[in-house]
Amino acid sequence: MRRRGGRPHHRGPRRRARPGRHRRPARHGPPERGQEVTASTHRAQPLPLARHRVRPEWIDYNGHMSEAFYVLVFGYATDAMMIETGLHAGYRESTGCSLYTVEAHVRYLNDVSEGARLAVRTRLLGADAKRARFTHEMYVVEDEGDEPAPDAAPVATTELLALHVDQNAGRAVPFPAEIRERLEALTEPAPEWAGRSIAEVPRSG
Amino acid sequence: MRRRGGRPHHRGPRRRARPGRHRRPARHGPPERGQEVTASTHRAQPLPLARHRVRPEWIDYNGHMSEAFYVLVFGYATDAMMIETGLHAGYRESTGCSLYTVEAHVRYLNDVSEGARLAVRTRLLGADAKRARFTHEMYVVEDEGDEPAPDAAPVATTELLALHVDQNAGRAVPFPAEIRERLEALTEPAPEWAGRSIAEVPRSG
Repeated sequence: MRRRGGRPHHRGPRRRARPGRHRRPARHGPPERGQEVTASTHRAQPLPLARHRVRPEWIDYNGHMSEAFYVLVFGYATDAMMIETGLHAGYRESTGCSLYTVEAHVRYLNDVSEGARLAVRTRLLGADAKRARFTHEMYVVEDEGDEPAPDAAPVATTELLALHVDQNAGRAVPFPAEIRERLEALTEPAPEWAGRSIAEVPRSG
Repeated sequence: MRRRGGRPHHRGPRRRARPGRHRRPARHGPPERGQEVTASTHRAQPLPLARHRVRPEWIDYNGHMSEAFYVLVFGYATDAMMIETGLHAGYRESTGCSLYTVEAHVRYLNDVSEGARLAVRTRLLGADAKRARFTHEMYVVEDEGDEPAPDAAPVATTELLALHVDQNAGRAVPFPAEIRERLEALTEPAPEWAGRSIAEVPRSG
């Protein structure tokens, strides 16, 4: 298992949606004028989208993003989820505890080009005393503030298992009650592609 | 799915093994004087170890390698396997075909520090007309030419599924017969941890 990076999460300023673009209201600011915030709105997208732009150094000689950098962007999305659920730098500093990724299942579904705008949707699938299971879905969007279209296909997905670790003691310890409650409150049904393993390929013939 | 990077694979010069270090003869040069090359020797370790040193830019603020860079090193090991099996840059240029990673299952088992010397063992688990399934196991070794000790625990593992793609046609196509034969000749039994999926974590409670 490994310690999570906890890099600062940069979110660019949001532009106003253009006509014809898909955009949902931000979930964590005050409601906009005339916008009704309902439980189902929150349930549909409880965590804000993590947004990144594909950098030149993430591109291989074929002109497409290299597989490690899909995982880098997913790591940034995990950092953003940690901030949203209270597992932020201040928490790590005051408690010595952090979240360690122990296992990941990645599907690379489509190429991504330099400069592409990425929007990553995070879903908490479950949490118990010391563990959290969650997914990220990566989409390419046209403009900075865009939501992925409802029928958009992700360019990549990942499913992750992470452990809450006391770094001084060097072992997994229970989440504080309030963080476990936040994780549990955010859980959603698993997407149909979760729980996969890699299919066998015959040894010969 | 994504196009593989095909970065050149750098192997440092090998130092002579020091007493007490674990080192096996290189597999792909001529046999050393007095060394008997047997089928079982080849079967035990058919592909050379891929070797890398952990760079400062792979380290997060906690002083350990960040999860994306485990995947970067595994990607270099895939490039090395491609070179060994004939899927090298010359092949890609002359045929327009390459290997695309479509799915990966990673286990992060231990922290890795800046400057650590990594040795990655690759196993082909199976190949059919258009697909290859293989694993990489990452070890930390003390010195550049060291083999991992027979009882060493890997710091990370990955299991991968890749597809042979005609980049001009934009679809999967069969491997040429001689490459498929090379892939099949290298297949080994799957390690016990292969075929895993991420366990469910309860949605609440």
